[in-house]
Amino acid sequence: MGDTPAQPGHVYLAGAGPGDPSLLTLRTLRLLETADVVLPDDLVSDEILALAHTAAHIIPVGKRCGQPRITQAGIHALMLEHSSQNKSVLRLKSGDPLIFGRAGEEMAFLRQYNIPFEIVPGITTAFAVAASLQTPLTDRSAASRLILATAHHAAGKLELPTVVGSALTPATFEPAAFQKDSTLVIYMPGRSFRTLADTLIASGIPPETPCVAVSKATTPHQQVHATTLAHLTDEGPGPAPVILLIGQAIQPNI
Amino acid sequence: MGDTPAQPGHVYLAGAGPGDPSLLTLRTLRLLETADVVLPDDLVSDEILALAHTAAHIIPVGKRCGQPRITQAGIHALMLEHSSQNKSVLRLKSGDPLIFGRAGEEMAFLRQYNIPFEIVPGITTAFAVAASLQTPLTDRSAASRLILATAHHAAGKLELPTVVGSALTPATFEPAAFQKDSTLVIYMPGRSFRTLADTLIASGIPPETPCVAVSKATTPHQQVHATTLAHLTDEGPGPAPVILLIGQAIQPNI
Repeated sequence: MGDTPAQPGHVYLAGAGPGDPSLLTLRTLRLLETADVVLPDDLVSDEILALAHTAAHIIPVGKRCGQPRITQAGIHALMLEHSSQNKSVLRLKSGDPLIFGRAGEEMAFLRQYNIPFEIVPGITTAFAVAASLQTPLTDRSAASRLILATAHHAAGKLELPTVVGSALTPATFEPAAFQKDSTLVIYMPGRSFRTLADTLIASGIPPETPCVAVSKATTPHQQVHATTLAHLTDEGPGPAPVILLIGQAIQPNI
Repeated sequence: MGDTPAQPGHVYLAGAGPGDPSLLTLRTLRLLETADVVLPDDLVSDEILALAHTAAHIIPVGKRCGQPRITQAGIHALMLEHSSQNKSVLRLKSGDPLIFGRAGEEMAFLRQYNIPFEIVPGITTAFAVAASLQTPLTDRSAASRLILATAHHAAGKLELPTVVGSALTPATFEPAAFQKDSTLVIYMPGRSFRTLADTLIASGIPPETPCVAVSKATTPHQQVHATTLAHLTDEGPGPAPVILLIGQAIQPNI
């Protein structure tokens, strides 16, 4: 870490945080200011990319809604191509690079080709959203655990009943344990919010549990929809991307 | 957020991240450089406090091992005293302010006294440690969920069998669900690592599950002890503070 500029032939898998440039880490800013090539995901904001140095080669590598504009192998090839030309490569992911991305695959590829790399953490959306809502994520009396989950299937397809049935089973969210001990944040919840809420309720989470849906979190277009699992509708949360915060500790100041 | 300096009479509850100053957010750095009063926790590093502006009044408010040097009410009183003198107050917490701290109580106090405040997220230790170990926290094939938990009891006392028995019950960590779907990170695991591991194994987590204990994470004194739940010992992890990463997705590069 520290203040070292991006090094020739190195790849940096770095988190860009939720979108607000002021939530970048100093390390990621330093890399943006010095990397030769930047490979940003779709969700990395223009304000952040504007901080790259003027001669940087920015190649967007976002994938949307299961319709890849570029494949994972294509991203690997770009990292290899540019690092082997002795350029420094900043692979910039929204949020944190090690959760709900494919960092494991990218690291395996880099190791396979002996490409030196560094991982730089970023603020993941759950924490930025909670800060913006001024709500704790855990609470000594209401929630001693935070669970970050996704309703996206590994294959990239949304198969709610199956996915939620396996990932968020009644055994996992045993009512008393959930109610007293957990905050649940669901990234990429899909658009079938009512189905998701019904599945969670069927698994034993009380219908009156607070549920806050945040659309386009931490951007100027952020919309906050505070409700309960019982009253969550498909339309309520607003446009994608949406993140859901569920639990007794979630007490947004809105 | 943005670039606004710390405002007179305002309180900022901000995350300082894990200790490395390069993992501060730009927002927290801006507040450090402009706040009149800084109230840091014990775990906020000297390197970070050195970034405060030269005239800043730094008042450490750490609490150690249940032996409070200052009470929570004392922290509240300091926030009130200085903000009511129209000073800007930076309440600086290690990691992120909204998880495993008492931000909910501090926000309730600030609201009660109509003190304007802002929350600034920080990199929580789990993400910084994973970056330093170069291991994913989730993986499409091994873990679709990340659970951040603590073994500390709400009262501040360590009562492992009881706490783990209620917070990490067999129902919660049903073996198949855990093995296939979850990474578990335990903050403040106490010192009875063997008891904790036995309790997790008794709850159904396979003994061969990878377990990495990191002592003094992200500092120059960091020690990494990679083992399995079956082989975790009380001595292995090294000096406090320790954080445990448990799950199939945890594949540290050491």
